[in-house]
Amino acid sequence: MEKLTIIKVGGKIVEEEGSLQRLLTDFSAIPGKKLLVHGGGRSATRLAEQLGIESRMVNGRRITDAETLRVVTMVYGGLVNKNIVAGLQARDVNALGLTGADMNVIRSHKRLVKEIDYGFVGDVDEVNATFLAKLIHEDIVPVMAPLTHDKQGHLLNTNADTIAGETAKALAALFDVTLIFCFEKKGVLRDEHDDDSVIPHLSRADFDTLVSDGTIQGGMIPKLENAFSALQAGVKKVIITQATAIDGQHGTIIS
Amino acid sequence: MEKLTIIKVGGKIVEEEGSLQRLLTDFSAIPGKKLLVHGGGRSATRLAEQLGIESRMVNGRRITDAETLRVVTMVYGGLVNKNIVAGLQARDVNALGLTGADMNVIRSHKRLVKEIDYGFVGDVDEVNATFLAKLIHEDIVPVMAPLTHDKQGHLLNTNADTIAGETAKALAALFDVTLIFCFEKKGVLRDEHDDDSVIPHLSRADFDTLVSDGTIQGGMIPKLENAFSALQAGVKKVIITQATAIDGQHGTIIS
Repeated sequence: MEKLTIIKVGGKIVEEEGSLQRLLTDFSAIPGKKLLVHGGGRSATRLAEQLGIESRMVNGRRITDAETLRVVTMVYGGLVNKNIVAGLQARDVNALGLTGADMNVIRSHKRLVKEIDYGFVGDVDEVNATFLAKLIHEDIVPVMAPLTHDKQGHLLNTNADTIAGETAKALAALFDVTLIFCFEKKGVLRDEHDDDSVIPHLSRADFDTLVSDGTIQGGMIPKLENAFSALQAGVKKVIITQATAIDGQHGTIIS
Repeated sequence: MEKLTIIKVGGKIVEEEGSLQRLLTDFSAIPGKKLLVHGGGRSATRLAEQLGIESRMVNGRRITDAETLRVVTMVYGGLVNKNIVAGLQARDVNALGLTGADMNVIRSHKRLVKEIDYGFVGDVDEVNATFLAKLIHEDIVPVMAPLTHDKQGHLLNTNADTIAGETAKALAALFDVTLIFCFEKKGVLRDEHDDDSVIPHLSRADFDTLVSDGTIQGGMIPKLENAFSALQAGVKKVIITQATAIDGQHGTIIS
């Protein structure tokens, strides 16, 4: 099977001109088929602030009321996505910006209200792998914004890690997928105070041990659960690394 | 050659929920291949206002400084475009939102400064007709925002009428194109105070006569010049009509 590299970058990297340009150059240098998933939370928070809309976060997730949905549609689908696309085109990467609504690429449903009403937040139902694969085979590079739709006319805010994970899983049957999550640190650290204590390889067994002895904790646990779930669904390799080291040779390789 | 209907709708229609929903339903009902070009100026002006950015218009064109470019990228590329796409997907139209940067569909250059510096405004150099045709043949319906790029990393604000006209011309070699411009009035009027005085057919000779006798004047003249230029470039039919009457049987048919 042909190789496909899926990179997920968070907001901070794509929202600062310097780090964005470097990322786009590094991304352009990745050989073969590729796909980029981006966030944009900081710009969304800033725009919301300027518009006098309060940003409410619960467990790191944005509560998305109707006004906030407008904001994230503008920032993720417009500002961040289109600037990345234009930047890649300037580097001769044939980028195509997509939300889940475009060509019905990712269908989701509005998250059910349990303890918390997240508002217009979508949980993924289906990624249209056939369609994405067709684009990718034509050397188009999808640039995916963290927005999906319910196929009933509603856009829904959807976590970028989830988009990357679900897209990787859906494409795993058609490509030999490497999924790279960019992170502030160089990888999964053995000692959170030592940036150079990167764990180079992590298996499920290692993970279980490091969670039970407290080495791995907090927000890294769901991130890694996400990674293992992708591997179980057929993704070949998951890497957690810094946005400045996305060549597949750095960070923590999870397999 | 296969028929292709290209519809251009301005901001007012796509920015009000009721008229947008009606438009999307009418657009969905158009048989065969189709493409939608939208504006969004009113929402851009409103967002700019909320952000304390002054909107400056010269001859009906927006002066686009760096801050305004951010606004129109958010509004045209994000808010308006993605809501149309989601609304069409709900109607089983396989819409794909595009700016000129996406897949390098429309390349432009920053307008040269003569008397007026329009700022980040793009004049179209090339429409990638081959690519658009490929999508259309796969039953994808392009939804085009009034943004282009210079292939050097810059997005540029580009008039939606121009996008529609240039796209129609570029596709005229590959399809039997009908280009429909939606307008506030029912068509080109013989008497501007009588909304029912629509001129059903208009030839170049009629146009010249009606301009010289003062029947047609003001903003309608460049609109019609645009229409005749499209016809000359091979577009089969140009219609000027209301957004509520886009079935190809209403308005002024220019040929």
